[in-house]
Amino acid sequence: MSELTATLLNCTLKPSPAPSSCDLLLSQVMSELAKHGVTGTVIRMVDHDVKPGVTSDEGEGDDWPAIRHKILSSDILIMGVLIWIGHPSSLAQRVLERMDAFLSEADDQGRFPSYGRVAGLAVVGNEDGAHHVTAELYQGLADVGFTIPANGVTYWVGRAMQSTDYNDLDETPQETDRTTKMMTRNTVHLARWLKANNYPGDPEAEMEKDQ
Amino acid sequence: MSELTATLLNCTLKPSPAPSSCDLLLSQVMSELAKHGVTGTVIRMVDHDVKPGVTSDEGEGDDWPAIRHKILSSDILIMGVLIWIGHPSSLAQRVLERMDAFLSEADDQGRFPSYGRVAGLAVVGNEDGAHHVTAELYQGLADVGFTIPANGVTYWVGRAMQSTDYNDLDETPQETDRTTKMMTRNTVHLARWLKANNYPGDPEAEMEKDQ
Amino acid sequence: MSELTATLLNCTLKPSPAPSSCDLLLSQVMSELAKHGVTGTVIRMVDHDVKPGVTSDEGEGDDWPAIRHKILSSDILIMGVLIWIGHPSSLAQRVLERMDAFLSEADDQGRFPSYGRVAGLAVVGNEDGAHHVTAELYQGLADVGFTIPANGVTYWVGRAMQSTDYNDLDETPQETDRTTKMMTRNTVHLARWLKANNYPGDPEAEMEKDQ
Amino acid sequence: MSELTATLLNCTLKPSPAPSSCDLLLSQVMSELAKHGVTGTVIRMVDHDVKPGVTSDEGEGDDWPAIRHKILSSDILIMGVLIWIGHPSSLAQRVLERMDAFLSEADDQGRFPSYGRVAGLAVVGNEDGAHHVTAELYQGLADVGFTIPANGVTYWVGRAMQSTDYNDLDETPQETDRTTKMMTRNTVHLARWLKANNYPGDPEAEMEKDQ
Repeated sequence: MSELTATLLNCTLKPSPAPSSCDLLLSQVMSELAKHGVTGTVIRMVDHDVKPGVTSDEGEGDDWPAIRHKILSSDILIMGVLIWIGHPSSLAQRVLERMDAFLSEADDQGRFPSYGRVAGLAVVGNEDGAHHVTAELYQGLADVGFTIPANGVTYWVGRAMQSTDYNDLDETPQETDRTTKMMTRNTVHLARWLKANNYPGDPEAEMEKDQ
Repeated sequence: MSELTATLLNCTLKPSPAPSSCDLLLSQVMSELAKHGVTGTVIRMVDHDVKPGVTSDEGEGDDWPAIRHKILSSDILIMGVLIWIGHPSSLAQRVLERMDAFLSEADDQGRFPSYGRVAGLAVVGNEDGAHHVTAELYQGLADVGFTIPANGVTYWVGRAMQSTDYNDLDETPQETDRTTKMMTRNTVHLARWLKANNYPGDPEAEMEKDQ
Repeated sequence: MSELTATLLNCTLKPSPAPSSCDLLLSQVMSELAKHGVTGTVIRMVDHDVKPGVTSDEGEGDDWPAIRHKILSSDILIMGVLIWIGHPSSLAQRVLERMDAFLSEADDQGRFPSYGRVAGLAVVGNEDGAHHVTAELYQGLADVGFTIPANGVTYWVGRAMQSTDYNDLDETPQETDRTTKMMTRNTVHLARWLKANNYPGDPEAEMEKDQ
Repeated sequence: MSELTATLLNCTLKPSPAPSSCDLLLSQVMSELAKHGVTGTVIRMVDHDVKPGVTSDEGEGDDWPAIRHKILSSDILIMGVLIWIGHPSSLAQRVLERMDAFLSEADDQGRFPSYGRVAGLAVVGNEDGAHHVTAELYQGLADVGFTIPANGVTYWVGRAMQSTDYNDLDETPQETDRTTKMMTRNTVHLARWLKANNYPGDPEAEMEKDQ
């Protein structure tokens, strides 16, 4: 059984070493991935200078090329997304913007460099917004070439207008724990096969180039 | 001070006489509106046969024309929206689809029949989705000509993946109560003025027709 | 190679026999699926009486149970979605609401009846909204257990505020044609494997029931 | 008639002096505002260092406090938003995140510092996404205290999957031009009155503080 690797992006707005609810949820995801033999690392996006733009390299001082390399060297991408104003954090949207470049980096069969990789989500906020953040990310990630497993998201939010953080809870709610396990299990199942069986791509795409 | 009227649409999926969380929240909104001298009625959409379509009258058996008349006879529209799968219920979307017809019913100055009216929201679900439902409805309602006050929504949702209903709570959460009051206060403030001071419209629109 | 079947749901608001842009796009998807050996049928939702609700059977006169059976007898679900007010049509949301029942119909390993099936999208409108409709549907479909392939959507919309329909175009735009081919190719690739290799599910789920 | 002022935020990802489609649309909005006697300035967000965070001042080097001051010194806020991956650009989301601080800066009557101000939108992209960006921004802006006029958005997008920019068009499409005029007219109408007639706020909020 081939060994799988994962990159987990924490899109919190708080730089290290501030505690992060998203970090906690991602560490739980990573623990579950490890049980399936997956190795991986968490990158806190706000600690890096990812320039605005929609290319794969925005020039001097841009930290994206290294992160992009890490993503494309992995079989699984987990986006850890904070909810703000009911939306994905600006740093999550920044990641999608930078991966928009994949669309102009297709291979001879029209496949983006992300093809053959599976994406999952870990979404967290004080209150409300997890489903919408999931929708935005699923669409963004599938548009740039990732595959989305059944129930590809784990999440936690509190009740309306409350302010306790996920990492202030006494214990992990059973529902989130069960969902984390299901999400990682499904992600790994799909990733293991897809790694060895990438989409076939478009035979005509190559012919177009030949002409 | 002119008297104001409101129409409140309950977009639950459950026909009467089933109890409805949305009904409870709308009755609280109506109580607050009454304190400001507003009279109004709640219509439970699922009890009526509102046909699919995007015109103001979809023919025999269509209950929309009467509801449309009620909406346009009122100064305030409150949409009571249930969250399902993180989205506005199909009945809320149905209402927006039918109001799409307003766009082809502009007056000589290019103003839709809804102009001069204010819309507010009451959103409820077991867990998650209030902000997104708000976004969908604000955009839909403003697109078809309603004006949206500051903090034009009151809502309640429980914590992630829980299943207690709003109308099963022992008491109304203080945050929702305060928000209901703020929403109705803002809605009435704006509606009172806008009723007497409709948008001026486009003087060129009339000229186009003259030619 | 096992034979695959597909169910394609046309969520237009217009009853048969009115021409439907969504029908045209779905017929193009079906043609491509056929090239991969997939057989399938298109169901126009508005021709059937699918009751409001979130159970698998809303009682007398409800046409959903038969459609649900068709979906779960197929390996691939293609949702054909019309854009109204920038959102999925009320009939598309209705379908998601009825599939919400899958969440309470999990098997001993916690897998919904939809598990092992792949979903793709065909989205069409006069102007604007395809990405958002895609987001809403991907999230809804993955939440109720479907798997989403890379680039699992084909679509067409015109430029801002224009009114020509997809089925009024002289010819199919090359971009949409190429996207239809990529979407169906990816959907079939994934569906063929997943049919024979369903997600393993949660071994603890069974244990919980045993206790 | 009191004089009104506007702040227009260009949320393109491209730093000056690169040409920007959003800049063009905002300059058209500004021209229309000027016809109504409104003065204003455009700020290109990417030229400034607006730190990640959700407070009104994220410390040394943060350019937000000056921009925040400009917004709150104006009667009208126009958000110029680029569409990327079908969503508001990361810089537009960044602006919303920073205005989230308004919620903890309410006055004695529970009114945010943004109360009494009107917000409008100018949305632009190559293809698709204007309605969804509008939804996200309306909800975000109303949540942090702005009022949204009827038809408070002007926009342009091309047909599906095309790549011409708004500022490459030979002329401004008539539909966008007419919409720009309607949007500015409605925004000014509302802003002029609201400036002199702010929402009354919550009398009980003050009492709570007194106790």
